Amino acid sequence: MNKPTANAVYVDWGTSSFRAYLVDETGNCLDQRASVQGVKKIDPGSCEAVLQENIGDWLEGDRVAKILMAGMVGSDLGWCAVPLVRAPCVAAMIAEKLFTAQHSQCAEIQIVPGVASCEDTGHVSGIMRGEEVQVLGGMALQNEKNAVFCLPGSHSKWVNVSEGSITSIRTFMTGELFDLMCGQSVLADCMRHAGAEMDRNTFVAGVECVRSGGNLLEAPFRVRAEFVADPHRSPVERKSFVSGVMIGSEIAAATAEMKADRSGELIVIGSQQLLSAYHLAFTRHGHSITCIQGEEAFIAGCRLLQGRAPKTAS
Amino acid sequence: MNKPTANAVYVDWGTSSFRAYLVDETGNCLDQRASVQGVKKIDPGSCEAVLQENIGDWLEGDRVAKILMAGMVGSDLGWCAVPLVRAPCVAAMIAEKLFTAQHSQCAEIQIVPGVASCEDTGHVSGIMRGEEVQVLGGMALQNEKNAVFCLPGSHSKWVNVSEGSITSIRTFMTGELFDLMCGQSVLADCMRHAGAEMDRNTFVAGVECVRSGGNLLEAPFRVRAEFVADPHRSPVERKSFVSGVMIGSEIAAATAEMKADRSGELIVIGSQQLLSAYHLAFTRHGHSITCIQGEEAFIAGCRLLQGRAPKTAS
Repeated sequence: MNKPTANAVYVDWGTSSFRAYLVDETGNCLDQRASVQGVKKIDPGSCEAVLQENIGDWLEGDRVAKILMAGMVGSDLGWCAVPLVRAPCVAAMIAEKLFTAQHSQCAEIQIVPGVASCEDTGHVSGIMRGEEVQVLGGMALQNEKNAVFCLPGSHSKWVNVSEGSITSIRTFMTGELFDLMCGQSVLADCMRHAGAEMDRNTFVAGVECVRSGGNLLEAPFRVRAEFVADPHRSPVERKSFVSGVMIGSEIAAATAEMKADRSGELIVIGSQQLLSAYHLAFTRHGHSITCIQGEEAFIAGCRLLQGRAPKTAS
Repeated sequence: MNKPTANAVYVDWGTSSFRAYLVDETGNCLDQRASVQGVKKIDPGSCEAVLQENIGDWLEGDRVAKILMAGMVGSDLGWCAVPLVRAPCVAAMIAEKLFTAQHSQCAEIQIVPGVASCEDTGHVSGIMRGEEVQVLGGMALQNEKNAVFCLPGSHSKWVNVSEGSITSIRTFMTGELFDLMCGQSVLADCMRHAGAEMDRNTFVAGVECVRSGGNLLEAPFRVRAEFVADPHRSPVERKSFVSGVMIGSEIAAATAEMKADRSGELIVIGSQQLLSAYHLAFTRHGHSITCIQGEEAFIAGCRLLQGRAPKTAS
């Protein structure tokens, strides 16, 4: 058997992290790199240098024909601002608008445009950069043309797909508000040093609290009241309760709105840790979901876009 | 007519601010002082020095017989930790538990205990320190023994009063989360330099957004999406929209829970700026409210407690 040949590099480059995958012709991942050099954490104008620093060795010789990048790297914070494609849009419409950039060591570097959804009034109601690749990948992996996608994170995206077309995007600031609550609010003291560990029971208690009418503005403060009066719970338990309230609130709000137009599957794409928390919360809310690893969806989406991109003149 | 004689000093001393009122025998305010020297902003153990610095001149001679203080000054952050009174409780029960502290220049200094409410299980569900004085004052001013009180702020308190007794306390982190969103979140960029000004129309749009199903985790992000795609709104308009979403969410959640056991008036106590925003939001939600200035309620509550306090041996 021949040694697999590297064919392309896919880069998921967001605000706070950089992830690159070296793939062969059939889409197998041969190597990967990750760093915290998100576009908001590096010097302006240094994208090419950071790319070189992280995966320069992959580009030596002529092994790699293409680099495909997605995420905030395609915004004014990143390599350059690639215009958003307007929803409703299918994969081919995004592939058509891949933006070609120059790179000294690579035959071709392309950036995936993000997607913007609009209200009937024409006002932009949602935007995403990078998640569209995971959504396209998720559709391909599940062979599903009608679905609601949930992509949890700092800014969770909920994306409706109808007949293979991305129709709407909503953003929930769940992860960012959770981090602000844990780190900066009056609750920080009683959750200090809790780390990323989750206590399953108190997480579920937080989810159930929302299901029985508890509210995002009020429920988290209960851990503070309890802390002051009777400090028997651990920081991990308190943090898990607040996490349950936050994620439970996101699911309650997002699924309430989608009831009317729900069609197809409910598919969640994310890291293992988030998938496990969301799976627990969705189950408590009475929803069955399909889970897909974020990296797997990203690679599948890149392959799909690469296959559909118009051929460049050579 | 004789010059009015100073009789007492009432101090509303919270986490982030210090407010003192010099009153005569009939409760008229003769003078007042305010500073940002909240108990969390001063050196530990420096309460007496800060009090002296702010109102030392009031205490010269023998003009003032009593100082009554309330708020976080009665916590472990402040002068000393005064045990919380458990709800349900009436004014006399709080007056009985006034904590007497020593002060070199003053005959008597007393600190009002806060109140804790509990669930049926015995778990503490809410606490307040300082707001109980405003609630008692509000009851006295309105001659109302059954009411729901809303005290907006960083940590808005909703307090149920039944037959003159404080029965439950809920805390909504509305103001603190709003400040974190405006100052620290991904939305900060598009609201920069907005100040405290309010744009009435976009504030109402935020309130209406919640009424038509918009959610606290999602709705604020719309100003970001709009900012990226079409930056025509001013920072003040964006901040007002987010404020409307936050306050609208608090009112929607709090009034939904109180529907079943609502009796008596809905009374809002706060600063002029908050009263005006909350009044607008309550009206949009279909509630008529009575507004009371925070200072007026505080002074009335202090007078009530002073009148009901057991006489000290002299």
